[in-house]
Amino acid sequence: MLDNQKLATLLRNFAADRDWDQFHTPKNLATSISVEAGELLELFQWSRGQKDWNEISDPSIRLRIEDELADILLYVIRFADKAKIDLQAVCERKIAANAAKYPVENFRGSDRKYNE
Amino acid sequence: MLDNQKLATLLRNFAADRDWDQFHTPKNLATSISVEAGELLELFQWSRGQKDWNEISDPSIRLRIEDELADILLYVIRFADKAKIDLQAVCERKIAANAAKYPVENFRGSDRKYNE
Amino acid sequence: MLDNQKLATLLRNFAADRDWDQFHTPKNLATSISVEAGELLELFQWSRGQKDWNEISDPSIRLRIEDELADILLYVIRFADKAKIDLQAVCERKIAANAAKYPVENFRGSDRKYNE
Amino acid sequence: MLDNQKLATLLRNFAADRDWDQFHTPKNLATSISVEAGELLELFQWSRGQKDWNEISDPSIRLRIEDELADILLYVIRFADKAKIDLQAVCERKIAANAAKYPVENFRGSDRKYNE
Repeated sequence: MLDNQKLATLLRNFAADRDWDQFHTPKNLATSISVEAGELLELFQWSRGQKDWNEISDPSIRLRIEDELADILLYVIRFADKAKIDLQAVCERKIAANAAKYPVENFRGSDRKYNE
Repeated sequence: MLDNQKLATLLRNFAADRDWDQFHTPKNLATSISVEAGELLELFQWSRGQKDWNEISDPSIRLRIEDELADILLYVIRFADKAKIDLQAVCERKIAANAAKYPVENFRGSDRKYNE
Repeated sequence: MLDNQKLATLLRNFAADRDWDQFHTPKNLATSISVEAGELLELFQWSRGQKDWNEISDPSIRLRIEDELADILLYVIRFADKAKIDLQAVCERKIAANAAKYPVENFRGSDRKYNE
Repeated sequence: MLDNQKLATLLRNFAADRDWDQFHTPKNLATSISVEAGELLELFQWSRGQKDWNEISDPSIRLRIEDELADILLYVIRFADKAKIDLQAVCERKIAANAAKYPVENFRGSDRKYNE
């Protein structure tokens, strides 16, 4: 289980202690998610990670990936906390919508969805 | 609580049913997070969301924000599931590291961190 | 005038000298453009640059902006060179398409385009 | 040659005609570059373009790539025009800096630069 309430509270206190809540507008948090996503992507800019998951088993690269993934997730949780979005509910709704959009019989084994 | 194991299982089945696991390399999932982060950011490309959270209370824009946020989170969960990353642990570690990096006494009320 | 042929040749030689052409696939260059765009965006993650252009007149921030903008443009030029795309022609075509899409009489003074 | 002055003038008139100059702050244009970079990246989200340049020779995908590349370049030109940045000069400076940073004898044939 991911205790997102605990994480949201830690982030809320973190911002309050530094008086940083003023900077946490919708636009700035969306920007922050994008910036951190770019930092994760940079780790895969060239040949790394094109084939399989063993390529990222080295502890030093693994640590960097974990840190970038955490940065993204923390901003997602912070955004949802400020906007009062129920992440579990919206994720389950999205998976159901995707299942309807990409019926198994039409999309099996094809990246047609992906490339069209 | 966010039941990320449940969501990870749903995503695993979703990919297995369509034989899409082959496309879920580290690089492709990092790319997908970035693409979805760009779609969230697009909603704030111009004047929306610069000031406060009431600006996104309109149901139609709220729905789109929820959908984009879900897309990002689902790819983060999928990545962590494939890489066997404990998201709760790495998030708590990252918050502790940030607290050490930005001591309250030096950064209170300042976006110096932010802009330097 | 921007001598993009000169820049493309410099980049071609740069890659050839280091045998890096092998890494310059369409996907990797598109990834690189996105990574560099994220680095430019990071400079505006919080309060900087929300209002006007005087905010970026400080020489140190200006230098960083110039460097990130150059990184983006160089990867765009490299991509176009590899794909044999005529940048001038596609830019003029795109401006004409935008003019048709956003008629002056319907969009004057409004960020409706932007936010809808 | 890329007539970036001509394109900058077209963009300036385009914005003036619609009274959109007010939206063209440094932060918003940096955001726009990132959003458009994400749209280009989306075309390479899965298997497309991992290997070579023939993969993008199909006219329909080529057209979409050209459009996204144009969107990115136009925002780069608009940003440089507003900030009075000499793109040719900063690009040549950046290539020279990269040549010093990655000496041929140390980096030939290696994506060490890339992955470290």
